Amino acid sequence: MAKKNAFYAQSGGVTAVINASACGVIEAARANRNKIGKIYAGKNGIIGALREELIDTSKETPRTIAALKHTPSGAFGSCRHKLKSFDDNPAEYERLIEVFKAHNIGYFFYNGGGDSADTCLKVSQLSEKMGYPIQAIHIPKTVDNDLPLTDNCPGFGSVAKYVAVSTKEASLDIASMCASSTKVFILEVMGRHAGWIAAAGGLAADQAGDPPHIILFPEIAFNREKFLKKVAQTVKKNGYCVIVASEGAQYKNGTLIADSGNTDAFGHKQLGGVAPTLAGMIKSELGLKYHWALADYLQRSARHIASSTDVEQAYAVGKTAVELALAGKNAVMVSIERGKGKRYSWRLGEAPLDKIANVEKMMPRSFISRDGFAITETARDYLAPLIQGEDYPPYKNGVPVYARTKNLLVEKKLKDTFKV
Amino acid sequence: MAKKNAFYAQSGGVTAVINASACGVIEAARANRNKIGKIYAGKNGIIGALREELIDTSKETPRTIAALKHTPSGAFGSCRHKLKSFDDNPAEYERLIEVFKAHNIGYFFYNGGGDSADTCLKVSQLSEKMGYPIQAIHIPKTVDNDLPLTDNCPGFGSVAKYVAVSTKEASLDIASMCASSTKVFILEVMGRHAGWIAAAGGLAADQAGDPPHIILFPEIAFNREKFLKKVAQTVKKNGYCVIVASEGAQYKNGTLIADSGNTDAFGHKQLGGVAPTLAGMIKSELGLKYHWALADYLQRSARHIASSTDVEQAYAVGKTAVELALAGKNAVMVSIERGKGKRYSWRLGEAPLDKIANVEKMMPRSFISRDGFAITETARDYLAPLIQGEDYPPYKNGVPVYARTKNLLVEKKLKDTFKV
Repeated sequence: MAKKNAFYAQSGGVTAVINASACGVIEAARANRNKIGKIYAGKNGIIGALREELIDTSKETPRTIAALKHTPSGAFGSCRHKLKSFDDNPAEYERLIEVFKAHNIGYFFYNGGGDSADTCLKVSQLSEKMGYPIQAIHIPKTVDNDLPLTDNCPGFGSVAKYVAVSTKEASLDIASMCASSTKVFILEVMGRHAGWIAAAGGLAADQAGDPPHIILFPEIAFNREKFLKKVAQTVKKNGYCVIVASEGAQYKNGTLIADSGNTDAFGHKQLGGVAPTLAGMIKSELGLKYHWALADYLQRSARHIASSTDVEQAYAVGKTAVELALAGKNAVMVSIERGKGKRYSWRLGEAPLDKIANVEKMMPRSFISRDGFAITETARDYLAPLIQGEDYPPYKNGVPVYARTKNLLVEKKLKDTFKV
Repeated sequence: MAKKNAFYAQSGGVTAVINASACGVIEAARANRNKIGKIYAGKNGIIGALREELIDTSKETPRTIAALKHTPSGAFGSCRHKLKSFDDNPAEYERLIEVFKAHNIGYFFYNGGGDSADTCLKVSQLSEKMGYPIQAIHIPKTVDNDLPLTDNCPGFGSVAKYVAVSTKEASLDIASMCASSTKVFILEVMGRHAGWIAAAGGLAADQAGDPPHIILFPEIAFNREKFLKKVAQTVKKNGYCVIVASEGAQYKNGTLIADSGNTDAFGHKQLGGVAPTLAGMIKSELGLKYHWALADYLQRSARHIASSTDVEQAYAVGKTAVELALAGKNAVMVSIERGKGKRYSWRLGEAPLDKIANVEKMMPRSFISRDGFAITETARDYLAPLIQGEDYPPYKNGVPVYARTKNLLVEKKLKDTFKV
């Protein structure tokens, strides 16, 4: 078999460790030079393939590639471009195969979440249909932790650690101020549909009664009265109340709290996310002084406080993707399997892409306390190992030293340009 | 001279390292048992003294006290209670002296910002007037870095490091997403009057042209047109734009951007901080997709990413306060003096409290670029040493292990209660 090149692309919202997966792919491919040719990375993800903008990773030094392991975000660029169904836009898929053909690409490594698992599957199916063989391997990545058939998703452990540590620290802050000042602190975190990230806030507690006192999950219908009652009771008991709220927290009818149209003192509708809406509610109904934080990108790019478990897994799924490809696999995702023992252990497996694409894994009800405001011990047992270990990046002048890739493009071979 | 006890209190907004100062005070006092009796800490700051709620720190183990060095926020509680002027409320000052007398307190260590420097001075003056000798020593603390007569303030270096690191990480995130998604990222940071914290965002840049592209300081009048033009130009040139905005950023007439009454699509006034207001402006005028983060308490409690320079200085000012007291000093603040050499060095000095109380140190104009959107090399030379070094706390189960003090109160000796 002639030596084929590989294509690697990052997809969707980036994470603190997606570059560790890139590092795993590139280092494993370089270690198999006799079997795999060059590794091209899509400039800005799959868009780079469509536009024939392929980054030649062989131009990057081994040192730069190694540094990807401690560099957050997508070094080659990512994108939110979701390929339509084949029937709706066959041209996009055909273009991908054309580009792959032109550059002798035989391996397609797609590093993303549910949407990209779907794309990866379609590329594999189409390659068969068009008679140009491509092995498509999906490398899981999502802070949302919502992919099925894997115990967890690389990227989640680090955002979970960030949220747990930040909740713990901010809780100490409000605890020391509450006697004469702020009584309620709200941290808004990511998670449009699944409450995994908010749940991680619960890991801030070492003992029963420790903050956070309330967690709001998208999975549990928001009840305004019950919530306000719990806030008031908590402040009465502890002097303060710490809330971790998922951006996707919603009412029973599906209205997001963020969109629920709280009105201010002037009767104007108050815009903003979950945190300011809850804060407005608490101020107007309970008259309590509040502070709130919106972590936004900080939470998913916080490589400085990454979980070493997460970093190791992210690297390993990248490396293993290459090994699966070399073993002839196709249309599979590298999965993480948890060992049965009491002590946490994990190993990698594989899962068929047709069982993954477009399935979202929600928090099981057994992970959420009966009152809907906390995580259970079962959830804690699941979550805690994923934030274990610190993996600090190197520092210079007080800030982390992150990789700077050259991102040099391969010369184009196709005459046509393609509008994305 | 009979052995006197000491009183220590934390004041105002807490920081990642104020407990390191507490550690310095208590360890230094314990090392001088022959000269200083017990160290009482005010429960919730000066309120604890007024209410005669004194925490007996001798009940804490050496290990717990040592752990304060890596524990954020105020372990004994802080407060926002500002004593009125002596003429407006002499009862408060008289009560303080009464409580100090009842508990044989001869040393008053007050750990805070400008307001507490003022209180500290007044206590000293009153003690003279009332004939009960108290040595009042001020220990500087403020994330705002706005105290005069000291090169910098403990607490600032760590929030500066947090802001620099977070800005760098979030910048990598948006850089990798901007081709098809978010174009503008705004990080809102603390600093009501002085732009020191926002300035620290500039340390995220390693090279000219690196993000952040725009910093908004309270010291520079906000010009909406100039700002929007700069955003548009930056996005055109780099594909994205990163903004660090001080919460105190304001228009020429003193109106805070946060209060400037942006209106939403429905004509309603949009509430919120600087970041959402700027985001709304960018969306409506330039049509660019944005993300924004509000760090709030996270930035000042982020002990996990504290500057080791800051931790060392915070500890040292506490320790030195005790040494100054033992040397007979009164009505002084421990100050940090920067060495003249090219290589950063510092030593501690003292500054008279009457020159400190109620003076705010703003960013010099020479620290801000001509266009008002960046820091100069002079600012960088000043700021960079303050974020040097990492001082990681110990971890257990993936989260930092922070001190838990017992906070046991001393038996009251006064019959009267005092309403605060």
